[in-house]
Formats: sequence, C-alpha cells, structure tokens
Amino acid sequence: MIKVSVLYPNTGNAKFDANYYFTKHMPMVRDKLGAACKSVTAEQGVAGGAPGSPPPFVAMCHFLFDSADAFQKAMAPHASEIMGDIPNYTNIQPVMQISEVKM
Amino acid sequence: MIKVSVLYPNTGNAKFDANYYFTKHMPMVRDKLGAACKSVTAEQGVAGGAPGSPPPFVAMCHFLFDSADAFQKAMAPHASEIMGDIPNYTNIQPVMQISEVKM
Repeated sequence: MIKVSVLYPNTGNAKFDANYYFTKHMPMVRDKLGAACKSVTAEQGVAGGAPGSPPPFVAMCHFLFDSADAFQKAMAPHASEIMGDIPNYTNIQPVMQISEVKM
Repeated sequence: MIKVSVLYPNTGNAKFDANYYFTKHMPMVRDKLGAACKSVTAEQGVAGGAPGSPPPFVAMCHFLFDSADAFQKAMAPHASEIMGDIPNYTNIQPVMQISEVKM
C-alpha cells in the first residue's frame, strides 16, 4: 500500500482558502481518482510542536493506493484539471510525496 | 478529532534507521500513548512528486486523538522517554504539527 501526501508549507505570504479546499477541491479530487483510491484524509494545520508555534503546514492531505502504478493510472486522466484548480484556493507551491505504508 | 503528525525532513546528511523506527520506536510510542490514541499510521518516503525526485521526507507518522488536550495528557507522562529514543534511530530534527481533521 502506498500513501500519496500533499503538503502546503505555511510560508509567510501564504494565501489559502480552506473552505474552498475542503468543500470543493478535495471532494472533486476524490471523485476523479475513483475506486482506485482506497482512502482520502485531509486536515488543517492548527499548531506546531512547540507551545504557541504556528503549524509548519497550512493543510495536508493523504491518499491511499494499492501501488504507485495504481495512483499514476488514476491520476493521469485528471492531472491537468486537478493541478489547474490549485490557483483557485492557494498561492502555495505544494510539496508532494509518495510513501510506503509501514504501520 | 485532531491529527498529530511527525515528519522527518530528507536532509542531505540524514541518518535514519528505518528498521528501528518502524519495529521498535513506533510500537513503543503506540503502547505508551494508550487508548487515548485512536489511530497510528507510519510510512517511509519513496519518491517526490516530480519523476525521479527524492522524497521530501524520510518518514512520517500520524496519530489521531479526540482533542489536543487528550494528546497532551497521553503524551506528558512519556514525553522524555519518547523524545529520548529519537537519537537511537536518527540525527534528523523532526517537524511536528497538530491539525484538525476535516475529511
């Protein structure tokens, strides 16, 4: 099982429309990825580890797939639409990672 | 519901004993946090978003709790033991975040 994570670093001049992201963008992405995507989670940053510190990331989301290949196949037909929606809610350059689920 | 995430940035000179982390450290942390921790996931970085790029993070883990207060109460009695185990598997300074689960 692999996890695809997309993280939005909390840069100083970041704009991020959380309402659009959680109620429009993420549901659209989930629908486009279809049944190959086994799980979707998304969360909004609240705080960092040190008391009173800001969250390192404004938001994160994580998608589970059986394999990187299954992710690529599900993503390819919708990549331009999904990526093209990003400027509708943020000016942050997201950080993406593919991980192997261990636990 | 809140998610506590701990991320290990993939710095150039990073040392990370994945075997120790996934088979010793993380199970120990899960046991110490007890029933207040509703879910534990942990994953190992494989790749970045761009083709052939390295993962931005060597590893990540995520813990679900009912509230930040529930996390603090579960963590406090074991914080020194948990934090003290980090040098046993890495020289990376982990990044920690508390998020509100939205999806």
